[in-house]
Amino acid sequence: MLVVMKAQATPEEIQAVCDHIEKLGFRAHPLPGAQRTAIGITGNKGEVDRGNLEELSGVAEVIRVSKPYKLASRDVKEEDTIIHFAGTDATIGGRNLAVVAGPCSIESREQAFAIAEQVAASGAQFFRGGAFKPRTSPYAFQGMGLEALRIMAEIRDRFGLRIVTEALDSETLDLVAEWADVIQIGARNMQNFSLLKKAGKLRKPVLLKRGLSATLEEFLMAAEYVMSEGNYQVILCERGVRTFNDHARNTLDLSIVPAVQRASHLPILVDPSHGTGRRDSVLPMARAAVACGADGVIVEVHHQPEKALSDGPQSIYPAQFAQMMDEIQQIAPVIGRTLPRGIHVGASAQ
Amino acid sequence: MLVVMKAQATPEEIQAVCDHIEKLGFRAHPLPGAQRTAIGITGNKGEVDRGNLEELSGVAEVIRVSKPYKLASRDVKEEDTIIHFAGTDATIGGRNLAVVAGPCSIESREQAFAIAEQVAASGAQFFRGGAFKPRTSPYAFQGMGLEALRIMAEIRDRFGLRIVTEALDSETLDLVAEWADVIQIGARNMQNFSLLKKAGKLRKPVLLKRGLSATLEEFLMAAEYVMSEGNYQVILCERGVRTFNDHARNTLDLSIVPAVQRASHLPILVDPSHGTGRRDSVLPMARAAVACGADGVIVEVHHQPEKALSDGPQSIYPAQFAQMMDEIQQIAPVIGRTLPRGIHVGASAQ
Amino acid sequence: MLVVMKAQATPEEIQAVCDHIEKLGFRAHPLPGAQRTAIGITGNKGEVDRGNLEELSGVAEVIRVSKPYKLASRDVKEEDTIIHFAGTDATIGGRNLAVVAGPCSIESREQAFAIAEQVAASGAQFFRGGAFKPRTSPYAFQGMGLEALRIMAEIRDRFGLRIVTEALDSETLDLVAEWADVIQIGARNMQNFSLLKKAGKLRKPVLLKRGLSATLEEFLMAAEYVMSEGNYQVILCERGVRTFNDHARNTLDLSIVPAVQRASHLPILVDPSHGTGRRDSVLPMARAAVACGADGVIVEVHHQPEKALSDGPQSIYPAQFAQMMDEIQQIAPVIGRTLPRGIHVGASAQ
Amino acid sequence: MLVVMKAQATPEEIQAVCDHIEKLGFRAHPLPGAQRTAIGITGNKGEVDRGNLEELSGVAEVIRVSKPYKLASRDVKEEDTIIHFAGTDATIGGRNLAVVAGPCSIESREQAFAIAEQVAASGAQFFRGGAFKPRTSPYAFQGMGLEALRIMAEIRDRFGLRIVTEALDSETLDLVAEWADVIQIGARNMQNFSLLKKAGKLRKPVLLKRGLSATLEEFLMAAEYVMSEGNYQVILCERGVRTFNDHARNTLDLSIVPAVQRASHLPILVDPSHGTGRRDSVLPMARAAVACGADGVIVEVHHQPEKALSDGPQSIYPAQFAQMMDEIQQIAPVIGRTLPRGIHVGASAQ
Repeated sequence: MLVVMKAQATPEEIQAVCDHIEKLGFRAHPLPGAQRTAIGITGNKGEVDRGNLEELSGVAEVIRVSKPYKLASRDVKEEDTIIHFAGTDATIGGRNLAVVAGPCSIESREQAFAIAEQVAASGAQFFRGGAFKPRTSPYAFQGMGLEALRIMAEIRDRFGLRIVTEALDSETLDLVAEWADVIQIGARNMQNFSLLKKAGKLRKPVLLKRGLSATLEEFLMAAEYVMSEGNYQVILCERGVRTFNDHARNTLDLSIVPAVQRASHLPILVDPSHGTGRRDSVLPMARAAVACGADGVIVEVHHQPEKALSDGPQSIYPAQFAQMMDEIQQIAPVIGRTLPRGIHVGASAQ
Repeated sequence: MLVVMKAQATPEEIQAVCDHIEKLGFRAHPLPGAQRTAIGITGNKGEVDRGNLEELSGVAEVIRVSKPYKLASRDVKEEDTIIHFAGTDATIGGRNLAVVAGPCSIESREQAFAIAEQVAASGAQFFRGGAFKPRTSPYAFQGMGLEALRIMAEIRDRFGLRIVTEALDSETLDLVAEWADVIQIGARNMQNFSLLKKAGKLRKPVLLKRGLSATLEEFLMAAEYVMSEGNYQVILCERGVRTFNDHARNTLDLSIVPAVQRASHLPILVDPSHGTGRRDSVLPMARAAVACGADGVIVEVHHQPEKALSDGPQSIYPAQFAQMMDEIQQIAPVIGRTLPRGIHVGASAQ
Repeated sequence: MLVVMKAQATPEEIQAVCDHIEKLGFRAHPLPGAQRTAIGITGNKGEVDRGNLEELSGVAEVIRVSKPYKLASRDVKEEDTIIHFAGTDATIGGRNLAVVAGPCSIESREQAFAIAEQVAASGAQFFRGGAFKPRTSPYAFQGMGLEALRIMAEIRDRFGLRIVTEALDSETLDLVAEWADVIQIGARNMQNFSLLKKAGKLRKPVLLKRGLSATLEEFLMAAEYVMSEGNYQVILCERGVRTFNDHARNTLDLSIVPAVQRASHLPILVDPSHGTGRRDSVLPMARAAVACGADGVIVEVHHQPEKALSDGPQSIYPAQFAQMMDEIQQIAPVIGRTLPRGIHVGASAQ
Repeated sequence: MLVVMKAQATPEEIQAVCDHIEKLGFRAHPLPGAQRTAIGITGNKGEVDRGNLEELSGVAEVIRVSKPYKLASRDVKEEDTIIHFAGTDATIGGRNLAVVAGPCSIESREQAFAIAEQVAASGAQFFRGGAFKPRTSPYAFQGMGLEALRIMAEIRDRFGLRIVTEALDSETLDLVAEWADVIQIGARNMQNFSLLKKAGKLRKPVLLKRGLSATLEEFLMAAEYVMSEGNYQVILCERGVRTFNDHARNTLDLSIVPAVQRASHLPILVDPSHGTGRRDSVLPMARAAVACGADGVIVEVHHQPEKALSDGPQSIYPAQFAQMMDEIQQIAPVIGRTLPRGIHVGASAQ
C-alpha cells in the first residue's frame, strides 16, 4: 500500500500519517519525491484498511501496490534513485556514470596503493577491494580482514576514492559499515535474509549483487529486504548468471538492465569481470553495459594479475582500464550520461 | 594430505601425529575407519612437507589428496559415513532408509502434533518443521521461532521422532543446535560460509541442502567448510536445481545421487517436495530417489495443505505419505536397503 | 475443438461428422476410446463454428480444447495410448514395461549380433542401433547407413526384437520407415518441423526424443506436429536436458514423466544413457525411471564399449544390462507394471 | 590439418597440393589469405600423413589444427572473413556495420513494402522477412511461402536491400537459394546436419543462428558442417539462449561475441529481437551488441506490430528503428566501425 501525500502537505501531516500507520502495527516509509512525498506501508500483518487512511489530512490518495516488491518498485517512487557521497561529486544513479575499480582482494598496502593510484588517475570514482573473501574452498585465501579495511581508508584519504567492499556476516558487516562507503553484499549472500535485514538497519549504501540463479523478482525482493528496514540506498549489480555456457565463467545478462529500469527506481551497475571471468572479455562487456544503459560498471583491476591471490585471469591491467574509461566515455553521451573525470586527486598527485 | 596410520597404531601414536601436524600450523582430522585410522590435514598455509610425516611412529603412508574437497572425499574415507542418533535405531546413511517428514512451517501446536502423529504412525523416523523461515519476501510469514522449537521438542518426547529444522544465521543456529537433533542449512545459505563454519564448530549433524545452481564440487566444498572445523556429521540433500523447465518448481537432479556416492562418503537425502513443487509429483520422485540409491527422503506433509501458511501446493496428505512409505519399502530391497518401521511410539500410542 | 460422439454412434455417423469437418476446411481425427469415439479437429484456419456440429447425428457434445496441443492432450483422449507390434506381445504404453537396448551405432554385423543376442536373452523386446548418426562434427563417424538397416532387419528375424532407429531427414526417413519398426526422431531434430510433418504422414510408430532445452509444452507440440498429419503412434522420450551441471553429460529430468502423464495420453520412455553420459549412472537412473512411472527405458549396451565408435563411455556391458533387467523387474510391480520376459527367441536359440 | 603455402606459391602448385590431398581420400579447401594461401584438409578417414605433404612444391609448412572445428577456426585463417554482395557496398564482416531489418513474417505486399521503405530510408542494407516460418504449433501461421519470396525480390529491386530469409528443409532451401541473397538457418535447425550439408553445397552466404542451448563449440561445429562442403560464407548470429530467466524471452549472450572473434574468423551478428522478446529491450541490446564488437544486428521491425501475425511484441516501430540507427552510428567508431548509410535508393525514392 502506498499513501501519496498532496504536493502541499506539511511535514507535520506526513509525520501524522506515519504515526497512524505505525500505530496500526505496520511500518511507514516516507519517500520524498520531486513533487510530493509518498509513504510506503509494509509489514506482514495482512492488508491495511485503506478507507481510514484516505481521510487523514494531507493525503491525496491511497494506492495498492500489486508487485510483491513495494519500496523497490517504480510504482512507489517514479524518480530514479540517485546515491550521493558527501564531499564528492560522485553519484551512483543519475546522469553520472559510476566506475568502481580495484583488485579482487587487498593483498598488501603496496599492491592496493599501486592499483588505486592508477585507477584514480584514469578517472574511477570508487575503489573496490576485498577484505573478507567468500571463497568456495575453506583452504583458499580468505582476505586480510581489518588490515585491508585500514588500507582502503588510507586510499580514500590519499586519492579521494570512495570505498566499496564486501561484508559476509554480522561481524564483518559492522566493520565494513564503519570503514567503507558502500557495503557490498555478494552474489552468494543475495538471499541471506538475516544479513540483508541487518544491512537494512544501517544507513550506508548497499551494493547488492545478483545471485547466480536469481530471477528479476527475487533480485528486487532481496533489495526490498534491505529497504523494508529503512535503508533505501540500494544499488543493484548484475554480475553474470549460471547457465550451460562454457565460453565464459558466467553468462552476463545485460538484458536485466532495462528490465530493472522498468520495474524499479534503483540504480544498477554491471560487473563484467565476474560476468565473464576472462580478461579479454571485460572491455567489450563494459562497453556493452554502458551502451545498454547501466548506471556504471565495477571492474577488477590488478597491476600484476598473474600474481594475484584471487581472480587473476579476470583482472584487467591498468592500461586496459584506462582504455576502457576512454571507450565508455565516448559511449556515455549516446544514452545521456557523462563520465565525471574523477576527483583528480590521484592525477594531481603524480 | 592424508596420513594413513598402520592397523596396529596405538591411540598415543595417532595423537602424536595429530600434535605434530598442529605444531606445523595445520589442522589434524583423525578419521577412524573399519581397519585403521586416517588423519586428514587441512589448512590454508600451503603444502605440508610429507617427508617428515612418513617417519613418525605408526604411520603407514602419506597420500596427496588431489580433489579440492579433502575430508568430504572418498579418497580420504572409503567407508560410507553413517550418522547415529542416541536412543534410537534410526540412522542416516548405511542400510537403513531415512525418512524425514513434516510440515514446511510449524504453524501451531495442534497442527504440528496432528501431522507428527500421522507420519510417526506411518514409520517416519525424523520430523521436519520450520521454526525460522527464509522467505523470498520480507512481508511473508517468517516462522514461529523459539515457540516452534519447543513444540518440536515435545514431539520428540511424545513420538520418538528426531527433529530436523533450519538455522538461518548465528543466532538461530545456537537455538536450533540446542533444541533439534539435526541442523538444516537451506539451499540459499549453501555458500553462506560464515554460517557453515559456525555449524562446523558444533557437534550436531548438519543437513546441507544443495544450492539452486550449485555444482557437485561446490556442494562438496560447502560440506568441506563444515568438516574443516571438525564436525564430520554432514548429510547432503538434493532439492532440485534451477533450470529453464516450467513444469516443476525446480528440476530434481537425481543423477547427483550416484555422483555424490562415487566422490564422497557422506550420505545424501532427496527432497522431492521442493524438488518438484507439486503434490502430484512427490510420490513418483520419492520412489525414484530411493530407486537410484539415495539414503532417504525428506518430504513435506500437511493434514490441511490448502490452509498451510507456506508450501501448501507441494505438501502431501498423510494418506499419501502412508502410501509413499509402502511403496519405497518395496523398492528398498532392490538396492540393498531396509526401511525401519519407525520407533512405533506413535503407532503404539494409537 | 473436440467432437465427442455418443456411445452408440455408428461408423457411418462418425464418418459423416468427419466429412462435415473436412468440408469446412479443417482436418478430422477420429480417436476411438474404450467407451466412445472422439473426433479431434485441427487446422490453422481459425476457430470452427461449434453450433453446427452439435446438431449432427450421433454427436454427444462439442468441447473446446484450451491447451495449445490438442491431439496429444489428455483432454482429447483420456485413456493411455498403447502401441502394439504385430506378431509380438511387446507394447509401448500400458501395463508392460518396454525395454529398448542396443549399441549407439551399428558398427558391423558381428558387433550388432553379439549385442542383440545378449539383450534378447536378458529380455529386451526392442533393439536400438544407429544407422544414420547425427554427429556434432562433420568429421566423425556418420553411421553405416542402409547396410546397418539390413543388419537390424536380420536381427529382427533372428531374435524377434523390434527395431528402433533414427531418421535424420526425408531420405533417411523413407529408408527407416521401410526397414524399422519404430522411427526415432532425435533430440536435435525435435523442432525440425518438416521432418515431423513427414513422419506424421507415415503409419509407423515415432519415438520422439525431447530437445536439449525443450519445455513440456514444446515437447508435446512436437508430438502434435506428427499427430496433426494423422500418425497418432507417438512415443515420447526423456533423454536429459542441458543445464549448468557438470557431473553428468546432461541433466536427466525424471519429473517430466509424471508431468507428461498428467497432460497427455502418450507413452513416455526414459534414456538414462544419454541422460547421464556415464556408464556408472545408467543403472541407478534406469531404476529411478521405472520407479517414477515411465513406460520403459531405452539404453545403450555394447559388449566392448572401450572400442565403440560412438558413446562408449555411456554404454553398459551386457552383464550390467542383465542386472538392470533384474532390478527393474523387481520395481515394476510397485507401479502396477510387469516386465514381459521378451519373446525368448534369443534365449531358446542359445 | 592445414597446409600453409609459400607466399610465392603459384596457382599450379596450389592446385597440385589440392589434387594430392583429394587423391588421398580427403577434401582440400584452399583458403586465400592476404599474404598467402592455406589449404585446409578435412575428412573422416583418420589422420593424414603429414610427411608426404611437406615435400610438395610450394608448401611452407603443415600444421595440425587441434580444435575440433577446422575451417571455422582462426588457426586456419587469421584474417576476418568479410562477405561482399555484388552491386552494393554492403558487407557483413569488416569495418562496416551490417544492419538487417524487417518483419518477422511477410504478411502481404503492402506490409512488406511499407516496412522496407522505412528501414531502407533509415539506412538498413539488408531486409529480413519470413517466407517459411518454423512455428512451435502446427496450427499457427506457417508463412506465405513462394509468394513472400517474390515480394522480397521486388523489394530488392525497388530499395536495393539485400534479402535474408529462412530455409526450413531441402525444398525450401532450393527456393530460398534461388530468390534470396542470404540463406538463414534458424536456431531450431542449428544441428539439422542434413540441412547444413545441403547449404554447404550452395554458394550463397548462410546466416546461421545459434541454437537455444548451443555451446560455442557446437555453434562453430555447425558452421563447420556448412564449410566442410565448400561454402565458406557463413555468418554466425547470436539470438539468445534459454535459461531460467523470466524477464526476457531468451537470455541474450553477448559475451559470445568476443569469444567467437577469438576462436573464429567468421562474422557474427546479434538479434536483439529474439534475444529479448520485448520491444522495450531491443534498442538497449542493439546498442550493447554494437558496443561489444558485433559485426552488425538483425532486428524485427513492423509498422503495425499490434497486428503482426507473429512476433509482434518484439517488433520495433520504424521510428524506433531510425533512433536505433542513430544511436549505433554514434557507438560504431568506438570499436573502429562505420555504419554505411545504406544505398539510399529508398531515401532518394521518397
